Amino acid sequence: VTVYLVGAGPGDPELLTRRGATLIEKADVVIHDRLIPQELLSLAPSAAEIIDVGKTPGQPRRQQEINELLVARGRAGREVVRLKGGDPFVFGRGGEEVQALQDAGVEYEVVPGVTSAFAVPAAAGIPVTHRGLSASVTVVTGRTGDPSAPGGVNWDALGRAGGTLVVLMGMAARAAIAAELLASGRPATTPVAVVHWGTTDRQRVVRSTLDAMADVDLPAPSIIVIGPVAALGG
Amino acid sequence: VTVYLVGAGPGDPELLTRRGATLIEKADVVIHDRLIPQELLSLAPSAAEIIDVGKTPGQPRRQQEINELLVARGRAGREVVRLKGGDPFVFGRGGEEVQALQDAGVEYEVVPGVTSAFAVPAAAGIPVTHRGLSASVTVVTGRTGDPSAPGGVNWDALGRAGGTLVVLMGMAARAAIAAELLASGRPATTPVAVVHWGTTDRQRVVRSTLDAMADVDLPAPSIIVIGPVAALGG
Repeated sequence: VTVYLVGAGPGDPELLTRRGATLIEKADVVIHDRLIPQELLSLAPSAAEIIDVGKTPGQPRRQQEINELLVARGRAGREVVRLKGGDPFVFGRGGEEVQALQDAGVEYEVVPGVTSAFAVPAAAGIPVTHRGLSASVTVVTGRTGDPSAPGGVNWDALGRAGGTLVVLMGMAARAAIAAELLASGRPATTPVAVVHWGTTDRQRVVRSTLDAMADVDLPAPSIIVIGPVAALGG
Repeated sequence: VTVYLVGAGPGDPELLTRRGATLIEKADVVIHDRLIPQELLSLAPSAAEIIDVGKTPGQPRRQQEINELLVARGRAGREVVRLKGGDPFVFGRGGEEVQALQDAGVEYEVVPGVTSAFAVPAAAGIPVTHRGLSASVTVVTGRTGDPSAPGGVNWDALGRAGGTLVVLMGMAARAAIAAELLASGRPATTPVAVVHWGTTDRQRVVRSTLDAMADVDLPAPSIIVIGPVAALGG
């Protein structure tokens, strides 16, 4: 095995898995996203090559380039850690990177991480499921194509499903998402919590309701939790 | 802080977080579920009190008793680790334990874990979201009241929502769940994967389709993944 797709967890460096730490400690190359705990890079050997492929707004490194980099370093027989925020397989595009490695015949292993989708609400005191309040939790992204429109997701059906919704990268489209959910029949008073930089020292939490969600103005990275559980932990 | 609700992860002991390991290593008391990696108990100091509160079928220890135990040990001023399978706040009833601790005035902290809901599919090569295949993932339990009936969850709406479904504790109700999703309009050919003891040495994966899901017969613990992504990694 030469390329490890490792989940870096939600922000707190102590939420890295033991397996992830072991792999970083012996890596020849670490290829990382922008939103990983920077402290984790100091776990790598001092001789390791560290490559930031973070998709900074305005200066995107295309996914195709990242795939090619993984394949090239993997083919060189080096121990490569591909360090991704949260979990590689939850909106992390890890599936695409795996396909590129498979197509190129490069060995790989996926090492799951603590997903931000559940750990960030937890850091605000919110359990995404709770007896009597929510029997399901749906994780969805607000960034599907046009950032001002929640396309690609059946918000009406998700609204009717009635469980907890966790929206990643949803701040730009928050007004449209709230409108869709209200139209689906979710009550205007449905609790909402927006958590900025969850699990880190920079964490901020704003509580609201579905009809006022559009007015919550926190910059990225922020995660939106919608449903009765969003009133807990306040 | 005296009571730590710690997610033990999905089964592979290396998927415990660094924070979780640190806390177990200095615990006075470890109160654990049945389905945690047993190797993790050896991290505790030899003098630590280890209490198994696993809800073995037929011999249930009621949640109320567990809450009372947490409060009693916490009030005694001991460092208590409440070790729960997967993540404490994803169908872990951690929210109820937190409320009991809050009501009793006992300090606590929640330490998220790698959730089985995402890591077990990953161990079978399945990303729960994937560009072009799934823009959302819903985690739901099949055990809501009557184990043969999927009550309490709007399966029709979840079926219409169109993303990936991950069903925990769903094997007993699998025929009813499949029938509901077919009735909602999900195609009979929708890929299904059932993963037994995911991430461990005992892992088994059975691939199927929605119309044949009822015929998949694996014992607990098994997780059902429904949607186009369930065909990946095979």
